[in-house]
Amino acid sequence: LHYSIAVIPGDGIGPEVMDEGLKVLKAIEESHGGIRFANDVMDWNCNYYLTHGRMMPENGLDTLKDYDLILLGAVGAPEVPDHVSVWELILPIRRAFQQYVNLRPVKLLKGLESPLRYKEHADLDFVVVRENTEGEYSNMGGRMHQGTPYEMAVQNNVFTRYGTERILKYAYSLAEKKPKKRLTAATKSNGINHSMPFWDEIVKEISQEHPDVHTTLYHIDALAAYFITRPETFDVVVASNLFGDILTDLGAAIVGGLGLAPSANINPERKYPSMFEPIHGSAPDIAGKGSANPIAQIWSLSMMMDHLDLPEISGVIMNAIEQVLVDGKVLTPDLGGKATTRELGDEIVRQIYEA
Amino acid sequence: LHYSIAVIPGDGIGPEVMDEGLKVLKAIEESHGGIRFANDVMDWNCNYYLTHGRMMPENGLDTLKDYDLILLGAVGAPEVPDHVSVWELILPIRRAFQQYVNLRPVKLLKGLESPLRYKEHADLDFVVVRENTEGEYSNMGGRMHQGTPYEMAVQNNVFTRYGTERILKYAYSLAEKKPKKRLTAATKSNGINHSMPFWDEIVKEISQEHPDVHTTLYHIDALAAYFITRPETFDVVVASNLFGDILTDLGAAIVGGLGLAPSANINPERKYPSMFEPIHGSAPDIAGKGSANPIAQIWSLSMMMDHLDLPEISGVIMNAIEQVLVDGKVLTPDLGGKATTRELGDEIVRQIYEA
Ligand SMILES: CC(C)[C@H](C(=O)O)[C@@H](O)C(=O)O
Ligand SMILES: CC(C)[C@H](C(=O)O)[C@@H](O)C(=O)O
Repeated sequence: LHYSIAVIPGDGIGPEVMDEGLKVLKAIEESHGGIRFANDVMDWNCNYYLTHGRMMPENGLDTLKDYDLILLGAVGAPEVPDHVSVWELILPIRRAFQQYVNLRPVKLLKGLESPLRYKEHADLDFVVVRENTEGEYSNMGGRMHQGTPYEMAVQNNVFTRYGTERILKYAYSLAEKKPKKRLTAATKSNGINHSMPFWDEIVKEISQEHPDVHTTLYHIDALAAYFITRPETFDVVVASNLFGDILTDLGAAIVGGLGLAPSANINPERKYPSMFEPIHGSAPDIAGKGSANPIAQIWSLSMMMDHLDLPEISGVIMNAIEQVLVDGKVLTPDLGGKATTRELGDEIVRQIYEA
Repeated sequence: LHYSIAVIPGDGIGPEVMDEGLKVLKAIEESHGGIRFANDVMDWNCNYYLTHGRMMPENGLDTLKDYDLILLGAVGAPEVPDHVSVWELILPIRRAFQQYVNLRPVKLLKGLESPLRYKEHADLDFVVVRENTEGEYSNMGGRMHQGTPYEMAVQNNVFTRYGTERILKYAYSLAEKKPKKRLTAATKSNGINHSMPFWDEIVKEISQEHPDVHTTLYHIDALAAYFITRPETFDVVVASNLFGDILTDLGAAIVGGLGLAPSANINPERKYPSMFEPIHGSAPDIAGKGSANPIAQIWSLSMMMDHLDLPEISGVIMNAIEQVLVDGKVLTPDLGGKATTRELGDEIVRQIYEA
């Protein structure tokens, strides 16, 4: 088994957590005969932008297309407006490669405590399926009357039947596999009166093709509250691009923090490379201190193994992470410890070799 | 002091909690000589719609205009699409009367425990200022290619300089009055690349007029997570219409639930009536059971008293609510008790007379 990976460490803590991710990949290779990951590291980030005036080379997407997988750290730096760094790197990749499924587990790992007073491990184990190519993140829109009191900005949210059906179908196929077969869809059709009623209609259509799945539609405001009050009622939560973005950071918070949460940007048809990344950003405030938590990045590798149909290896990575958390001796500051990024990464690697 | 109030109980649990609200108003009148609230009850709701084909009479807004205040229960019923009930009643009122400030306290009351494991009363006491007239709740947009695989819906988010400046100015004026003068603004300018960078620019402009206020901009995804991990860092949170909607339901969840959280729709210029309502919806699933929590509605009356510059009466109402919560004997099911809506309302009224 030989896989080629385009590695984009990015900015801030991105390269720091990526280093640990690459160590884990190496440990997997060394401990599992016959698997080989060929990594090429791309220096596409905000520094690259400051030098070249663009986040990646003109043929960047073409270059990436030939890889089996993409591994991303985090992108964004104070010197470059976020909408530039993101719109010229992450979002084009998600779109060009039809990574229309953004899969984000909300799962309380062994050894961790939820910040929710009465919630235990069994209460916190579901997955969010986020639409990843359209919706509220459209680059359609603009401004008028600049420099006058009448200045205004308009942003178009674009929902296509095509885009909405495919994400819902994917979510339903996941829900089918869950013991309780519960699917929760986020909407806001009471306040947002064109796009969201359309979304609801398509949810209704697809739900009728899956009568065995229990479908519930909640408005995003109520749903965010239910993440706190009854997370145990979810199996698969499906949401638009923006709503999924918000719900998954919230999801990360209820299972121990942004330093842990991974994300898979999947092209289910496998026509293009899928991309694996932490949910967290580049965190310029703690960059360079060696205090970032590498677990989100490493967990994203476990998702990559699942995508490659290597569940055993995925399990090895998760067990190693959980073992380190249960031991509780080598933890980064966000987890209440004093270890560095590297020390925590080394400890996970050690567990992988031991397994 | 004589105030005229247009009372719109609405649907579902709306009329049930409104009954308790009206009892409280009466108790205030009887226990405070010289204050008079003249209530007219409007039957504008989904039933009205099913009979008349509209949520309120054609001259509904004209009728409301002559009142000093509007008191709303909750609107929405399964028989009427939400975007109809909301867009023909609540949203037109918020807009026609330039109630551009939606003020929503996130405060853990005495006698209650936060579902957040390590957060205490002192950690949970801030206010969300939500833009209430434009932004993501625009009725601009539509559909194309219906009935084909190419069907799509577009929704325009509309941000005006006028609308953005006025809400930010209001939020800054509140932050000025807080001991630590912290203002947190919600954005998503990394993903939403026209409206949100515009919002950020105006935040920056207005912040420069208030150098004594500590301004922080967070992306909405991270900010939602911070509501869980560090709510103690907020004084005033200001957000667009949709982001404010999501954050305030989340805010309600971290201080004990949607049954408690009130909301004031304010026209700061006092040219038009302001409107007071619970954050919760009409909850058709529990309607008619007498189990709804009336506290959100009653707390909204306390906000109404603040708006009328009657802080002493506002305090009487809040003390009565907190006394009942501290006693812990007469609580509705959402608070872990067995009392009915009416019993809890009666208990609050009793405390008001005792005060
Ligand atoms: C009914 C609905 C449109 C409304 C809103 O989103 O504004 C409600 O959720 C609220 O928060 O007042
Ligand atoms: C960087 C940003 C645009 C991105 C998003 O909102 O999609 C991030 O928050 C994420 O969740 O992956």
